[in-house]
Amino acid sequence: MVLIAPSILSASFDKLGAEIVEVEAAGADWIHVDVMDGHFVPNLTFGPIVMDAIAPIAKKPLDVHLMIENPENYIPAFAKAGAHVITVHAEACVHLHRVLHLIKEHGVKAGVAINPGTPVSAIEQVLEDVDLVLVMTVNPGFGGQAFIPTTVRKIAEIRRLQQERGIASLHIEVDGGITSETAPIVVEAGADVLVAGSAVFGRSDRAEAIREIRSSVAISQG
Amino acid sequence: MVLIAPSILSASFDKLGAEIVEVEAAGADWIHVDVMDGHFVPNLTFGPIVMDAIAPIAKKPLDVHLMIENPENYIPAFAKAGAHVITVHAEACVHLHRVLHLIKEHGVKAGVAINPGTPVSAIEQVLEDVDLVLVMTVNPGFGGQAFIPTTVRKIAEIRRLQQERGIASLHIEVDGGITSETAPIVVEAGADVLVAGSAVFGRSDRAEAIREIRSSVAISQG
Amino acid sequence: MVLIAPSILSASFDKLGAEIVEVEAAGADWIHVDVMDGHFVPNLTFGPIVMDAIAPIAKKPLDVHLMIENPENYIPAFAKAGAHVITVHAEACVHLHRVLHLIKEHGVKAGVAINPGTPVSAIEQVLEDVDLVLVMTVNPGFGGQAFIPTTVRKIAEIRRLQQERGIASLHIEVDGGITSETAPIVVEAGADVLVAGSAVFGRSDRAEAIREIRSSVAISQG
Amino acid sequence: MVLIAPSILSASFDKLGAEIVEVEAAGADWIHVDVMDGHFVPNLTFGPIVMDAIAPIAKKPLDVHLMIENPENYIPAFAKAGAHVITVHAEACVHLHRVLHLIKEHGVKAGVAINPGTPVSAIEQVLEDVDLVLVMTVNPGFGGQAFIPTTVRKIAEIRRLQQERGIASLHIEVDGGITSETAPIVVEAGADVLVAGSAVFGRSDRAEAIREIRSSVAISQG
Amino acid sequence: MVLIAPSILSASFDKLGAEIVEVEAAGADWIHVDVMDGHFVPNLTFGPIVMDAIAPIAKKPLDVHLMIENPENYIPAFAKAGAHVITVHAEACVHLHRVLHLIKEHGVKAGVAINPGTPVSAIEQVLEDVDLVLVMTVNPGFGGQAFIPTTVRKIAEIRRLQQERGIASLHIEVDGGITSETAPIVVEAGADVLVAGSAVFGRSDRAEAIREIRSSVAISQG
Amino acid sequence: MVLIAPSILSASFDKLGAEIVEVEAAGADWIHVDVMDGHFVPNLTFGPIVMDAIAPIAKKPLDVHLMIENPENYIPAFAKAGAHVITVHAEACVHLHRVLHLIKEHGVKAGVAINPGTPVSAIEQVLEDVDLVLVMTVNPGFGGQAFIPTTVRKIAEIRRLQQERGIASLHIEVDGGITSETAPIVVEAGADVLVAGSAVFGRSDRAEAIREIRSSVAISQG
Repeated sequence: MVLIAPSILSASFDKLGAEIVEVEAAGADWIHVDVMDGHFVPNLTFGPIVMDAIAPIAKKPLDVHLMIENPENYIPAFAKAGAHVITVHAEACVHLHRVLHLIKEHGVKAGVAINPGTPVSAIEQVLEDVDLVLVMTVNPGFGGQAFIPTTVRKIAEIRRLQQERGIASLHIEVDGGITSETAPIVVEAGADVLVAGSAVFGRSDRAEAIREIRSSVAISQG
Repeated sequence: MVLIAPSILSASFDKLGAEIVEVEAAGADWIHVDVMDGHFVPNLTFGPIVMDAIAPIAKKPLDVHLMIENPENYIPAFAKAGAHVITVHAEACVHLHRVLHLIKEHGVKAGVAINPGTPVSAIEQVLEDVDLVLVMTVNPGFGGQAFIPTTVRKIAEIRRLQQERGIASLHIEVDGGITSETAPIVVEAGADVLVAGSAVFGRSDRAEAIREIRSSVAISQG
Repeated sequence: MVLIAPSILSASFDKLGAEIVEVEAAGADWIHVDVMDGHFVPNLTFGPIVMDAIAPIAKKPLDVHLMIENPENYIPAFAKAGAHVITVHAEACVHLHRVLHLIKEHGVKAGVAINPGTPVSAIEQVLEDVDLVLVMTVNPGFGGQAFIPTTVRKIAEIRRLQQERGIASLHIEVDGGITSETAPIVVEAGADVLVAGSAVFGRSDRAEAIREIRSSVAISQG
Repeated sequence: MVLIAPSILSASFDKLGAEIVEVEAAGADWIHVDVMDGHFVPNLTFGPIVMDAIAPIAKKPLDVHLMIENPENYIPAFAKAGAHVITVHAEACVHLHRVLHLIKEHGVKAGVAINPGTPVSAIEQVLEDVDLVLVMTVNPGFGGQAFIPTTVRKIAEIRRLQQERGIASLHIEVDGGITSETAPIVVEAGADVLVAGSAVFGRSDRAEAIREIRSSVAISQG
Repeated sequence: MVLIAPSILSASFDKLGAEIVEVEAAGADWIHVDVMDGHFVPNLTFGPIVMDAIAPIAKKPLDVHLMIENPENYIPAFAKAGAHVITVHAEACVHLHRVLHLIKEHGVKAGVAINPGTPVSAIEQVLEDVDLVLVMTVNPGFGGQAFIPTTVRKIAEIRRLQQERGIASLHIEVDGGITSETAPIVVEAGADVLVAGSAVFGRSDRAEAIREIRSSVAISQG
Repeated sequence: MVLIAPSILSASFDKLGAEIVEVEAAGADWIHVDVMDGHFVPNLTFGPIVMDAIAPIAKKPLDVHLMIENPENYIPAFAKAGAHVITVHAEACVHLHRVLHLIKEHGVKAGVAINPGTPVSAIEQVLEDVDLVLVMTVNPGFGGQAFIPTTVRKIAEIRRLQQERGIASLHIEVDGGITSETAPIVVEAGADVLVAGSAVFGRSDRAEAIREIRSSVAISQG
């Protein structure tokens, strides 16, 4: 099954609670929470204060994506607020294995993300340690980018490694430029969690937007 | 006249638009916007995305306090969103004079902030270049702190320097632990903009909260 | 065809214009411009000011090699000055894919460099995004080093990946310890742009120096 | 032959000289010296001052493991004090090849270490340049960790690469959670230097402790 | 009364316990513990591991001097090990007031240190928050330096500020080049804690060494 | 006597040797050498390679201004190349006193610079240690700035401190926006070394340009 995770980055921040309620009613499976610090990426979005506000409202799992340096410092706060999964960037962690297990010690599922330019080899040693791999399909924290096709082969490569090592279950999430046109491509390659930003929140009828993405991949999953 | 600037850090982030409307109706003079990046201070709050959401709603001047490293990178975004004043920390700026004039080049009033442990000498060379000095009365970005009395003498010292140099107008703002008990002390020393966090947003009747602070200093101003 | 790119780092900096004119007359195909910032490498050479001075004089393509941190900050300046290709180091870029496309958005060819200790896997995800790969054959920014033979296998591996993926054209440049003795080795492996420093500028007859390198690889290319 | 290298991190620091004498008498082959700077790892242990104190006392080779940023700055001091081998972390060196040869220029054997989350590809280009690879079997600088089994496959992969490239001799060292239960696993995979911390110094009879580890692997080496 | 605080940096690190016992018997009032991280200063000495070893042995107060970046990270460990006073550098703390109170929250006396080139104004805002000011009389972390006379006026200035503000009690400690010749100078100016390194540990008769310093200042104190 | 120090930053970098010869013939007293690293300031100019090229040509003293982080790393190279004075920024040096004496140990005169926003208190403790104070009259490393009048009072304050302390000789240099209009103002306040950039190199008749500045201050000096 493919999960749709609308990113609140594209929601209206003056009425975030209402936005969450609406997008959940519209069929969102997860709520994607994009944390940026202006250091790991050249954009500063928000931190635990926003998570604390939406966690009591959201009924769906909160999928926290930390695009920050020293993510270990923020794991306790996001875990306490009720994150379902916390994803850190391989490029931000010298002690990647340690950070992933710190997430788990807080009772949260652990994810690892890689930028478009980062090869799968960067995470091959932690595949057994994670519940989710996030393959960025655009460069995080930069505006106005289109889906990058060369990232698709990484999805397939991760699925191949998973099989080779007998890893029972592993989500592969994609983030960036996901629409009903690109969704089938990444799902075909093995992705099963699709982050959608403006493709959902940018539309007036969000239920329809989610249905469109879902049906596009239903076809591809046949 | 003393201005009351409630900090949105203490507002409910799931309905920020409504919070702004309410606190303005309750008598707020300015809206204080606390930007933290998890690097200059050990807390990550929010960045331009929240500013962009509240700017069209707020009718009162937006008073942006950048508790971030390399604030120069974010001045254009906050200026464009409609900041009335942008305040940077002296401790964060090697080229402090340059950053302040960058703010002004964007048509925004420029402020400089100093931490409780920072002496007035750190900003004495830029007093002619700013519209506002923010004297932190607690350490920014750390929770649960009480008003620090040794910061009060800095307010008086800045007013003395202002007079000595014939600087026509200069706001002195204070931030941290401001209540109807501490407000008279800082206003007596020369402060004229009071940031209030939980003392306003933490109360159910925010108009009363603002009135209390205002009347406390009215007495002190005689 | 193999291109010879003399590095101005070995030229006389008191008469750089004349040096450029002479080395172009001597048969240089490209002019290699070594920018170091004293941070990415422990040497500080020069920045845009030198590029601006030589660009109007050079008739051959200017091949800019940025051995600096945060190269994105300098791409506009070198592009504006007329760079033909700008090469950044994989080790310096967390968002490597983004930086390479920033170069292209400025209308300049994009290159990616790897240090002697860096494996090809570090750049495998951006091979489709670059016009040139620079395989460092010495450690950049350290003096007095000899050609490192273990770097040669990386040239062959890149050519193999290029073919495997059907990438139509890709320069492979080498830099460090290139002489008429080492040139045949790297060209044999697949390199087609040879940076030469003291091997050209350190000789009194630079035309002869270039001819020697060229003929050494002509033999190897058969 | 498998070498046992007790780590002085688990020794009594009030009588380090006596500890060294005792553990050498107990059968230690090497003395492992764990240098941490509180930056590369979140622990600060000690620097050259301790090395200088133990070097005149130790008769066995001193095996220095630098878990520090900018290790190049400390190579001269540890070399001068009499290090037998100096090991730096791949994750700490942008110019890894250069640092390894700097160690050799000081007449000391060169080692390279990788964290549990770091793949073998990170060091594949320097295998010909080192005398030792240290495969961390726990995350360095964090307390209370158990042996991480997924690190074992890296030992085998390094031995395979060694053979493939015809590298005559190469130590593979492991560090973290090594006991008589885990030692056979890593030796089987190809490790030949075993760092033991509390498993040796934490026992009252250190000779017995060393004998136990040694005999556990003797069986495995059969 | 003037206190003599021998620095263990000049002790023999192979038998630190015995050194502590001896120097305490010889008349030391405090034991000075010099922690350096190779980042704030270009020397790496030791961290909590050495403190943990000597704390159970030392009967005199342990006077911990943190010449490290981000000292807040190490305050809990040194407090737990039994520090009497923990001193941080003003140059290392953006949030100096906060760090000093963190020390106090751990039940330890708080000190602030300034380098020879740092003016008293850097700490004037925290004089009420500390139990001790450490005026460095050489540059910390660099070898072979002589006492710097221009630091003496800072001692007098701090005493003047103390009096002016009615601060009841405040230690002023000096560190660097303190001998029976320089001790009278600093005590005359107002210092009451004298760190002595090689002047005590470098002498065979440490009791005599301490007596010499003590009698030199007894004369100056009349 | 007032010295004029043209900055080579405004010279033609394709024929630097000729530029030096010309400006010396035109009456320059010192040659000002502006080294920027793109980190301390947002501009990267050049490093030792340019100094090495001009030193054998220049007959006048070379006045090196290091606008770089970690200037201590570059002092040996600039000293060896023949610098007359090396100036470092107070804002770039945690161990300012140490860096200044490192310059002197290399047999070169030591200078300290302060940015427009930096107060005199930042350098008051090293006035006895320097041969020159450079009061920046614009922000270094940013283009297109006008002379900042609030910097002038710092010149007078330094002269006052010099007198108060009986410091026999001390150059005060100014850099930024110096023309025949601003020169009298700074000389009146106490400056005796004037850096001039485009005001000299930007003119076709450089001798006339220097004469104009010189005569403007001759009048002010009476």
